[in-house]
Amino acid sequence: MSAPTAVSSDQRAVVLLSGGLDSATALAIARARGFKCHALSVDYGQRHVAELEAARRVARAGGASEHRIMRVDLAGIGGSALTDPSIAVPEEPSSGIPVTYVPARNTLMLALALGWAEVLGARHIFIGVNVLDSSGYPDCRPEFVGAFEQLAALATKAGVEGQPLRIEAPLIALTKAQIISEGTRLGVDYSATVSCYQADADGRACGRCDACRQRSAGFTAAGVVDPTRYKAL
Amino acid sequence: MSAPTAVSSDQRAVVLLSGGLDSATALAIARARGFKCHALSVDYGQRHVAELEAARRVARAGGASEHRIMRVDLAGIGGSALTDPSIAVPEEPSSGIPVTYVPARNTLMLALALGWAEVLGARHIFIGVNVLDSSGYPDCRPEFVGAFEQLAALATKAGVEGQPLRIEAPLIALTKAQIISEGTRLGVDYSATVSCYQADADGRACGRCDACRQRSAGFTAAGVVDPTRYKAL
Repeated sequence: MSAPTAVSSDQRAVVLLSGGLDSATALAIARARGFKCHALSVDYGQRHVAELEAARRVARAGGASEHRIMRVDLAGIGGSALTDPSIAVPEEPSSGIPVTYVPARNTLMLALALGWAEVLGARHIFIGVNVLDSSGYPDCRPEFVGAFEQLAALATKAGVEGQPLRIEAPLIALTKAQIISEGTRLGVDYSATVSCYQADADGRACGRCDACRQRSAGFTAAGVVDPTRYKAL
Repeated sequence: MSAPTAVSSDQRAVVLLSGGLDSATALAIARARGFKCHALSVDYGQRHVAELEAARRVARAGGASEHRIMRVDLAGIGGSALTDPSIAVPEEPSSGIPVTYVPARNTLMLALALGWAEVLGARHIFIGVNVLDSSGYPDCRPEFVGAFEQLAALATKAGVEGQPLRIEAPLIALTKAQIISEGTRLGVDYSATVSCYQADADGRACGRCDACRQRSAGFTAAGVVDPTRYKAL
């Protein structure tokens, strides 16, 4: 986490791209700051594979220089409604950390981004986490992002050689409405994104899960027309 | 990192197991402390796949309750002699961080272990890193292990709920000879392990790479007969 700075046009960043609304906005912000963006999506056996299709569209539309999908089999360890088909996605608000929490997901995705950044010589990793509308996931908080940045400085050859990586979380303190406003200003096409935890193969949203509810409320609060395609009820 | 404590017999630990000498010893130490050990090997596209076969043998011989191999395609990002066939494994000592360094490898392996530990309800993760004979890899140092433990406390549901995980690195300050002495005392069968960066499919070692040289010198210094099988020269 650091204050935004202008960068030279050949400076590379790895941008974690889920295909959802937040990471599409993070990509737009990284591009607006001048980074050459290497987009990384992680196929961790998630229930909503439509997100990976969305990630491809978002990478293309958002001007990423490159897009890679890395596969890690988190379904093998289960423990989340997003990776284990036997756990239902809740359609009512819940208290505490919800069952859609995927154990260590952001740690893992940042670890993959870190390895790729080191190979690319990229000094910045963008991640679209935000704490306010984050469903209460522990690994969406600023203290988590800060701890990973400290780890990255110690974990890598670049860090040891005095070139630590920065973990950029430009949405961390924004509400969903603020994220949508900022992305709209930067020209993000949110119709390409999929946020729903149980979207169908065509990317149509359920309108009922936590992610759908937050997204819909965000468009309303931002005064932006919601381009989400919903399943027929 | 923390002082060893006795544990109840149903307490679970995730033990990272590469199939090499160090992690075999870490497993023996975890078992000796009373943990029910869930061994985790990561297939990251390494050149020395014989290590994964060795990991299976070591898990069985070392009394692991379970052994899983998770696949992550680090070969796709290259950048290391251990994952990129176009980079040769050096057979002479080098200064600085060698080309066998795999970007963010231990961060990634600990992230996978963290996710699994959270699902299992395990509070301890064992990793066989050691700083003295570590080839100079940045992610084998105590400060790296400490930073990951801090991250784990912030990254997980268990941590947020006041049950932080401990990263146990019992070999961190030991020499290769001390590791071999301790493992021998605990009954580790080192003939099952493979350390060589370019072992053949049968697990026979080259005798010339950094890992082979450190291992061989360790057996000599410990006064223990070296059971390593070497390729015919």
